[in-house]
Amino acid sequence: MSTAATDEPDAVATASGDWRHVEPLYLPVTLAAAKDAFHERGFHGTSIRDIASRAGVSLPTLYYHHENKQGILVALLEAGISSILNRVRAAIADGDTPRQQLSNAIETIVLHMTADLQLASVGRELRYLDSDNPHRQHYVGMRTEMEDLLADVLRRGMASGDFQIPGNVREVLRYLLGACQEVTTWYRPEGARSPAQVAESYAATSLRAVGASSDTTTDHT
Amino acid sequence: MSTAATDEPDAVATASGDWRHVEPLYLPVTLAAAKDAFHERGFHGTSIRDIASRAGVSLPTLYYHHENKQGILVALLEAGISSILNRVRAAIADGDTPRQQLSNAIETIVLHMTADLQLASVGRELRYLDSDNPHRQHYVGMRTEMEDLLADVLRRGMASGDFQIPGNVREVLRYLLGACQEVTTWYRPEGARSPAQVAESYAATSLRAVGASSDTTTDHT
Repeated sequence: MSTAATDEPDAVATASGDWRHVEPLYLPVTLAAAKDAFHERGFHGTSIRDIASRAGVSLPTLYYHHENKQGILVALLEAGISSILNRVRAAIADGDTPRQQLSNAIETIVLHMTADLQLASVGRELRYLDSDNPHRQHYVGMRTEMEDLLADVLRRGMASGDFQIPGNVREVLRYLLGACQEVTTWYRPEGARSPAQVAESYAATSLRAVGASSDTTTDHT
Repeated sequence: MSTAATDEPDAVATASGDWRHVEPLYLPVTLAAAKDAFHERGFHGTSIRDIASRAGVSLPTLYYHHENKQGILVALLEAGISSILNRVRAAIADGDTPRQQLSNAIETIVLHMTADLQLASVGRELRYLDSDNPHRQHYVGMRTEMEDLLADVLRRGMASGDFQIPGNVREVLRYLLGACQEVTTWYRPEGARSPAQVAESYAATSLRAVGASSDTTTDHT
């Protein structure tokens, strides 16, 4: 709700329990400018001067908030992953069965992608961060936490008989998350499909992919 | 077999009918250098001088073969898509049922990704090509041809009762291909899983995702 021009992502909005209501994440002006620049020209194609110029701030102002270009990329990545992590937590908490929990989680992940295609694409720039960058480890830790939450849903679903996954559970999870991530490469808001339609269709395909019965009466609700 | 230093991708190797035997695509020295450069620094982070320098050729030599940096990217994209298109054709021709055809096609697509992670990643740089670039249209046409082949397999599988896809067939296909494309972001050759293991696991997950019965006796072989 605050309109103060802080340089921190809006934690209140991202912590919302309403995981189906996903709007583009509020970003401070420098991060919004960096998102546009990285999306248009990539990490190495963007200079810190480009970002300052797009944001309409001075270089000293930019350096007051961020150590360097890597620091700006990390701040963007963390804004995106903390938003999605909070929503995935809420989506799982809102389901009574592994089946409903997985469906909810996939829905909110897809809605996160379609709500801000540029921000969701910036995750690909991670490979340009130095592997010993401590902020990279923090970001990767949050992403791992999200994957662990979902792996737990898959394992509980297998234990309950809801899911039939004959192979490697982590690899099936990578399959699902990869499909969701790639929404950013083909989805266009002006196209025929609404974000909600894509999210529901991806949730249904994901349930089939984990061997959930297509008979909805197997829901233990 | 030819060792001649031509500047055309090796069409003989890519047309092989042995769709499970995927090796890194032979690329002429300038395209190999461009692949490395685009992978490390992105399209906008790479200059045409960088590519010439990495390839150990002069700028006039580079310009003899390629109009500009966009032309080099297109040549790389076309080398990758023509290889995968030929293998997908062979993989489908090698299956007797839609189930086997889809499984084969997903296997060869994943093997294409793992055989050359850098080349498979370069497809993401497509968004930097001018939309009115005629070579872009040629590349997109080949990619569409591959998607059409797979959509046809899905539709035949639905008609035969092999597959149960309640939703939008094209969107389910995007889901499958997205999952395969993202293999490039997590797969590492030094990891625990072999390319063949990942390819088989992705084929099996894809079959579940299109609602193929898990009972292999439904194969009409």
